[in-house]
Amino acid sequence: MVAVTIWNEFRHEQEEEEAAAVYPDGIHGALADVFADAHEVRTATLDEPEHGLTEDVLDATDVLLWWGHIAHDEVDDEIVDRVQERVLEGMGLIVLHSGHFSKIFKRLMGTTCNLQWREDGGRERLWVVDPGHPIADGLGESIELPTTEMYGEPFDVPEPDRLVFTSWFEGGEVFRSGCCYRRGNGRIFYFRPGHETYPIYENEDIQRVLKNAVEWASPRAGSPRTFGERE
Amino acid sequence: MVAVTIWNEFRHEQEEEEAAAVYPDGIHGALADVFADAHEVRTATLDEPEHGLTEDVLDATDVLLWWGHIAHDEVDDEIVDRVQERVLEGMGLIVLHSGHFSKIFKRLMGTTCNLQWREDGGRERLWVVDPGHPIADGLGESIELPTTEMYGEPFDVPEPDRLVFTSWFEGGEVFRSGCCYRRGNGRIFYFRPGHETYPIYENEDIQRVLKNAVEWASPRAGSPRTFGERE
Amino acid sequence: MVAVTIWNEFRHEQEEEEAAAVYPDGIHGALADVFADAHEVRTATLDEPEHGLTEDVLDATDVLLWWGHIAHDEVDDEIVDRVQERVLEGMGLIVLHSGHFSKIFKRLMGTTCNLQWREDGGRERLWVVDPGHPIADGLGESIELPTTEMYGEPFDVPEPDRLVFTSWFEGGEVFRSGCCYRRGNGRIFYFRPGHETYPIYENEDIQRVLKNAVEWASPRAGSPRTFGERE
Amino acid sequence: MVAVTIWNEFRHEQEEEEAAAVYPDGIHGALADVFADAHEVRTATLDEPEHGLTEDVLDATDVLLWWGHIAHDEVDDEIVDRVQERVLEGMGLIVLHSGHFSKIFKRLMGTTCNLQWREDGGRERLWVVDPGHPIADGLGESIELPTTEMYGEPFDVPEPDRLVFTSWFEGGEVFRSGCCYRRGNGRIFYFRPGHETYPIYENEDIQRVLKNAVEWASPRAGSPRTFGERE
Repeated sequence: MVAVTIWNEFRHEQEEEEAAAVYPDGIHGALADVFADAHEVRTATLDEPEHGLTEDVLDATDVLLWWGHIAHDEVDDEIVDRVQERVLEGMGLIVLHSGHFSKIFKRLMGTTCNLQWREDGGRERLWVVDPGHPIADGLGESIELPTTEMYGEPFDVPEPDRLVFTSWFEGGEVFRSGCCYRRGNGRIFYFRPGHETYPIYENEDIQRVLKNAVEWASPRAGSPRTFGERE
Repeated sequence: MVAVTIWNEFRHEQEEEEAAAVYPDGIHGALADVFADAHEVRTATLDEPEHGLTEDVLDATDVLLWWGHIAHDEVDDEIVDRVQERVLEGMGLIVLHSGHFSKIFKRLMGTTCNLQWREDGGRERLWVVDPGHPIADGLGESIELPTTEMYGEPFDVPEPDRLVFTSWFEGGEVFRSGCCYRRGNGRIFYFRPGHETYPIYENEDIQRVLKNAVEWASPRAGSPRTFGERE
Repeated sequence: MVAVTIWNEFRHEQEEEEAAAVYPDGIHGALADVFADAHEVRTATLDEPEHGLTEDVLDATDVLLWWGHIAHDEVDDEIVDRVQERVLEGMGLIVLHSGHFSKIFKRLMGTTCNLQWREDGGRERLWVVDPGHPIADGLGESIELPTTEMYGEPFDVPEPDRLVFTSWFEGGEVFRSGCCYRRGNGRIFYFRPGHETYPIYENEDIQRVLKNAVEWASPRAGSPRTFGERE
Repeated sequence: MVAVTIWNEFRHEQEEEEAAAVYPDGIHGALADVFADAHEVRTATLDEPEHGLTEDVLDATDVLLWWGHIAHDEVDDEIVDRVQERVLEGMGLIVLHSGHFSKIFKRLMGTTCNLQWREDGGRERLWVVDPGHPIADGLGESIELPTTEMYGEPFDVPEPDRLVFTSWFEGGEVFRSGCCYRRGNGRIFYFRPGHETYPIYENEDIQRVLKNAVEWASPRAGSPRTFGERE
């Protein structure tokens, strides 16, 4: 059992009818349901004190999921520092869709994390390019999503340690959609699918990837991270 | 000026009218023209003694290009040993299209180098996913090829050191089309485009990639590769 | 429980008194004891039919350990093909010490796997350079071995996917002693420590690394490796 | 000819006699001499307006060298933003010794960049672990430094794209001393040697590495980095 905390900006669902219709309990609510039967699940949102990410919550978190879109700048730098520190100490981090532009992802990557995009509702096919990766366990050769927002290359991130998925888009683009990184002792997985008004997180294959990713990103014991002056 | 040797199986062009029509001087002839104005160019083919890859030829080669398709098994293991040895010592190697199944590429990768394919003449778009790579110098954001054979993932190769191109195919597939590797002191570039009957190597962007790749793969001085017992 | 098969050349221990004194049941016997309480363990040796690595044995193996030194050339190429195939399909492989020059390791790496060495019985310290890696779980910051054979750089292998250990040697050398690779679906770990006459495999930290490595290298379900023509 | 800008904190040399004795013109002055005959060289220091790194200076810079130690926190975040932006657009960055703790290096790495250290004046030997890398051109198998400060693992940085040097220290430690990274279009090289009172930068092999690194890190043309909405 992994202690999962789902962080959601939670603005679209409160401000826009269309988003509220797809995710009546917020994206965090929908994601919480995905993990509820197997893991210990918490949620946290932007407008809570300390964005819901207190020291206590992070101390009790094995893997943190992050969804944000229109309010990245409202996330307090002190909380970003705190999350970064925990990731480097071993907490897993799964960054979803528009979270590519979150402060925490840019902080950990060191790059702009910019990309190309088009809101066209076209078809996407996520190809497994690393069938031996545990995040691909139990999938077929690809995942089909009938209606998505397009993200296209170049994606300004460091070369992934392992690339698990590459997306094909009906409109003619490709994108590295599932990227694994290690920073400090922490495992980081960027996963492209998601949207505030397309019900991507109801797709069973997508749910399977998220479950696999939570297992993959959960902390290992490791050996000491001892720094500073030696005798 | 780089000493370039172009190796071609040279069977399709001798045995099939359609291939001979596209490449009257053989694929090696067409590729030789690409480099002729800037580099010292040699060609070598399967049916020459030692497949044209004598010790002398390899000693005088900075970068070797490899095209093969229907006669991989006829390449002598001793010549494969010889080419591998030179690559590890620093000679560059550029493997083209169906060369993914050549003995030398499989030898250097350690994997099956298998993939999916479909001979459908559909459209391909090669996206630059690493715009800072010298192999992408001077290109636009993508290369468009109107008529190609499809290659699809999974591609059973080691995770590339750097991935420069990812292909989008009209039929719904993606492929890691430009993969960089270092083995020993040698630089290896696998480049997907090419075909015996589609005039891919006449495309100016493809020619530019090949020229860039030859520069990138050319040997550096390096420091000594000293092995064995030490005092 | 992981199905572990330990392959040992088993010549030193039969031909040399000194080796027999340290490893009376062979290196494979000593290694089998390490895993016996937690895993299903088999052993196999060079002089058995098919070197003990029949189709049935490999079908029943999750992780294969490999120790060889003076008889690499006696390993049949057909068996090497078979082991390579299973690794690419997902079987784990742990290559020990002088196994760096084994046919199977060279096959999977594509390089000479050469290095520098000195038989001086000096002190070695293996530093954990990746404290977040599961193979380092439960270790301190380094492992101390009072008496070892030195292996020095350059080590002619592909850049590891992850480097877990780097050795310091009393005589002035360093070596990348714990190297992780993925080839196909298989996980490969090269681990330097070991020797036919120094009792390295009795060291508790070394045993812990081997146990961790077996867990790490065990197969995952993955997604289909489908190759060939597509419709 | 590469446009090189050398940034130095320049505090030790102004405040401490011992440092002033070794580097009477500042570390930046000594480094400027290394490149003066082949490149266009500028220097910049912390106490200049905008730390000497104005828009104009950075626009005219191909490769920036960075040395800092006791005043990392005095570097303005706005200048760090500016340097990061230029690196991602293609400017090379060479980070020296105690610069591992500079804001710009931590920003680009996303980690603490922490390490172990001991000011013992012991012997260091930098082994070339990647003899085929252009940064190692013209070196022997290792570089010997008789008197250095020790830096030891773990070094909390992302796994390098390529590891060129690993240091052996007399006192028993190892360190990944020459680490190559790509971030955006920019090439980054961390090089450990250096000190305010040991004359490390007078060593000819060290100078050769710096010269090689400047060539390696200089910008390539690349292809467009186009981001944002697509039609």
